[in-house]
Amino acid sequence: MSDTDAFELHPVLARDTHRVATFELCELLLMNDARFAWTILVPRLPGLEHLHEIPQRHRGRLYDEIDRVSRRVLALPGVEKLNVAALGNIVRQLHVHVVGRHPGDAAWPGPVWGHGVPEPYTAAAAAALLRRLA
Amino acid sequence: MSDTDAFELHPVLARDTHRVATFELCELLLMNDARFAWTILVPRLPGLEHLHEIPQRHRGRLYDEIDRVSRRVLALPGVEKLNVAALGNIVRQLHVHVVGRHPGDAAWPGPVWGHGVPEPYTAAAAAALLRRLA
Repeated sequence: MSDTDAFELHPVLARDTHRVATFELCELLLMNDARFAWTILVPRLPGLEHLHEIPQRHRGRLYDEIDRVSRRVLALPGVEKLNVAALGNIVRQLHVHVVGRHPGDAAWPGPVWGHGVPEPYTAAAAAALLRRLA
Repeated sequence: MSDTDAFELHPVLARDTHRVATFELCELLLMNDARFAWTILVPRLPGLEHLHEIPQRHRGRLYDEIDRVSRRVLALPGVEKLNVAALGNIVRQLHVHVVGRHPGDAAWPGPVWGHGVPEPYTAAAAAALLRRLA
């Protein structure tokens, strides 16, 4: 059995996101909130809460995947800055936010977490963004 | 000349923090805000804004130092959860927050950034915490 066989995506993450891609270690998700270019990487390893708990043999892979997603999000139109964060105060399953920001966005310069009310993507907008990110 | 010779700590970070320790790659700082166990790691490499810009030869060291600080902050009394984040919307110099959180803290479960008014440490409290973290 591989490390990732017992993994199940947290139901709150499943509810609030679109699935974008499956990488070697992580699931890449898109938050269903059109205000921000907000992606989330979730390592398919059960029982992790914190970054420093990642087994050494998976660590380089996790940071490679964060870098890969960072470059993709930074290449999206209008994105000028990235916010990369592992918070998990509410959903404890380890997940890493990679959020594209720009001066004047709905929460700028504050953080996106807990800010205002999400604005779901239209089906067409979600599909277009999923194609760019995948 | 080593990579780090041209580094200067951003004046806002210098103003808002206590210096805790100098690691191989990073300066470890303590935010002068007694509401949270809030540390910041700053790689002594000039010109970086984003995590994915860290040169490959320094990357493992950065994540080792984040892990080391994570364990120290998680070991502080009352800390139950870590928030690890590279944001930089205001101060662009790359810096990584490692913040100890617990249910019921001043911003729980929201993020600490931009929340309320910082409460500076007393000299004695700062000194005690610096000893524990260094």
